[in-house]
Amino acid sequence: MKYLGQEFFIEKIKAKLIAKKFGTPAYCYSYSRLKENIENLQKNFKSFNPLFCFAVKSNTNKYLLNEISKFGFGADVVSMGELIRAISAGISPNKIVFSGVGKTAREIEYAINKKILLINAESKSEILQIEKIAKLKKKTINIGIRLNPNTDAKTLKEISTGKKENKFGVNEKTFLELVDYIKNSKNLNLKCLSAHIGSQILDHKPYLKMLNVLDKVIRKSNHKFEYVDLGGGMGIDYVHNNKKLNLKKYNSYIQKFLKVNSCKIIFEPGRSIIGDTAVLITNITYIKESDKKDFIILDAGMNDLMRPALYKAEHKIIPIVKKKIKSKKIYEFVGPICETTDKFLTIKNYQKLNENDLIVIYDVGAYGMSLSSNYNLRPKPIELLIHNSKIKIINKRQKLSELV
Amino acid sequence: MKYLGQEFFIEKIKAKLIAKKFGTPAYCYSYSRLKENIENLQKNFKSFNPLFCFAVKSNTNKYLLNEISKFGFGADVVSMGELIRAISAGISPNKIVFSGVGKTAREIEYAINKKILLINAESKSEILQIEKIAKLKKKTINIGIRLNPNTDAKTLKEISTGKKENKFGVNEKTFLELVDYIKNSKNLNLKCLSAHIGSQILDHKPYLKMLNVLDKVIRKSNHKFEYVDLGGGMGIDYVHNNKKLNLKKYNSYIQKFLKVNSCKIIFEPGRSIIGDTAVLITNITYIKESDKKDFIILDAGMNDLMRPALYKAEHKIIPIVKKKIKSKKIYEFVGPICETTDKFLTIKNYQKLNENDLIVIYDVGAYGMSLSSNYNLRPKPIELLIHNSKIKIINKRQKLSELV
Repeated sequence: MKYLGQEFFIEKIKAKLIAKKFGTPAYCYSYSRLKENIENLQKNFKSFNPLFCFAVKSNTNKYLLNEISKFGFGADVVSMGELIRAISAGISPNKIVFSGVGKTAREIEYAINKKILLINAESKSEILQIEKIAKLKKKTINIGIRLNPNTDAKTLKEISTGKKENKFGVNEKTFLELVDYIKNSKNLNLKCLSAHIGSQILDHKPYLKMLNVLDKVIRKSNHKFEYVDLGGGMGIDYVHNNKKLNLKKYNSYIQKFLKVNSCKIIFEPGRSIIGDTAVLITNITYIKESDKKDFIILDAGMNDLMRPALYKAEHKIIPIVKKKIKSKKIYEFVGPICETTDKFLTIKNYQKLNENDLIVIYDVGAYGMSLSSNYNLRPKPIELLIHNSKIKIINKRQKLSELV
Repeated sequence: MKYLGQEFFIEKIKAKLIAKKFGTPAYCYSYSRLKENIENLQKNFKSFNPLFCFAVKSNTNKYLLNEISKFGFGADVVSMGELIRAISAGISPNKIVFSGVGKTAREIEYAINKKILLINAESKSEILQIEKIAKLKKKTINIGIRLNPNTDAKTLKEISTGKKENKFGVNEKTFLELVDYIKNSKNLNLKCLSAHIGSQILDHKPYLKMLNVLDKVIRKSNHKFEYVDLGGGMGIDYVHNNKKLNLKKYNSYIQKFLKVNSCKIIFEPGRSIIGDTAVLITNITYIKESDKKDFIILDAGMNDLMRPALYKAEHKIIPIVKKKIKSKKIYEFVGPICETTDKFLTIKNYQKLNENDLIVIYDVGAYGMSLSSNYNLRPKPIELLIHNSKIKIINKRQKLSELV
């Protein structure tokens, strides 16, 4: 994704042509970028050959899941819906881990029937529930326990998951009690310790802290874990200032950890491989001048991309055709939804825009379509996968007739 | 909706029985409450017989829209989807107003073809667009202009719409220029001045300020407006401390306004008539003890009810069976979604709860189902309408098979 001359291209195709052919708003993924991200991750951690389980919640597109599975990826799922989707996309159940704090009996039963790799339990109650179901089925189930390492990922409060006030995982004391409990259970087989400290992490130091906590707790537990699931959380460069997570450092920390703790590492990447693969192409319906600023009213709204409204997340916005003239006014990019929160970005010194100009919103591959809704009874956008000069529709634009 | 003895009833039906028969999570609306709300609103403003246009964005359920239309209501729609839905629910096009900052050419054309009452335009660009389409169709279109009265509704920043930094409406200067422009247009007929200062307003004073601004601007415009659309925004008692908007005062302000400005008043109520008609019944999947607090993990999540995650909105939560024993721990009610924002309420001194207890989340009739999504590939809940001893399914529970 880049400008060639004044025109923005996704792989070898002009974004303008995509908009003309498929309309707007349109989610466009770059296959090459996805491949590059996956291979980069695999290369950085190749010394210990981890199992990568793609975090399906970040992007549930079936076609993309299938493409990702071709690189040997499994899946991290958080609901029965995601589990069914992952399997139907061709991901092998023996590479699927099931996370989440509220798995219902029905979901646990389904996961057991499908013989997935691990159910990563998040509470004592859940472990008792799994055991109860396993007993009824006369089976022994492979599980993990999610430890809450009480590590501050120093990211947005809204997306931190590894501090003790969060609902995720159990604290050290409970963890050790549960290890003992499971040792005496005939129906549970404790295979994994899992942890996940948050999302969009760009600093490697919290990961080191987390590994130190895991190391300490494993020693105390006196249990041999076949798997250690380090979760995901690896951040991407949303602000495009080249601040990147130092994977080499993270890798060296893990190598050190593995010297004392021989186990198979599981990662649950979502955003880090899919986040920057996609842009949302959108049309400027109106430009509305006001005293202090001009509102750039787009045909994409918070229902199409929820992250700015939900997390005050900022996504870079660029015009599809570059021009040299600057606007003297502040631009506020907003959607058509009747909500004040339906706002994407406020920016100064932007290129002068006109109505019906096309723009792209960057880095929408993760938590874009998966968080979208039909609010204001707006149909969901089309999803397209671009590879070199080819365009594939990987999710049709929802029709109004399906909706009303 | 109330306790009879220890049991919570929706009209004449035990909530427990509803959960047993239809599962959880379930949106349950009370028909009697809806009727009461509508009649109360109509009674308070009966002296000037306004046109009530239900704000479809607050609740798009077709069956409910049809019930609401039987009280003589029209609809306030903000998209082509909502317009189609309103008409298909039996609402007469000549009682429909179309609001929203980003109406596309296609939407405007559709609205013109359906001969709706008014297109309430929000910018000069939109007015030019309507005129262009009207010219092509050789028609004269009835429109309104939305004035941004720069009035602070003193409510949450996230839901304020009537301050000048908001994207909605036009300022006084632009308004007056547009009135002059439309006077000279052969294809536009300026019938309405519309305004809307925000949502969830409980203080009548901002409405008085708004009316004073409208009065002044109408005088300056020297135009006879057939309609003045005062929008909605009338708040409800989410915190249940009996703080209510004083409708009598609001009515008296409008009566005074009408003495100088003879016109038909339009209201766009949404939340005020549908908000407190519904509860969300949900089951406690797990209770997870932690040091400082217990997490009450529900089977309803932020995908089912987005307001707490999106606006930090608080909804009252009550148990379906009342008991006298209190918990010594703080309770944090959370959903099953893998997001820290998936949290409903934190509360002290709550009745002691057990796993598989049922609870209800209050006041979810507005912006509940309409903002819901399939995040985490979770199917949408069922919607039920209760009237006396009758239960009607007004929206089936989404099946996983439809989703994956």
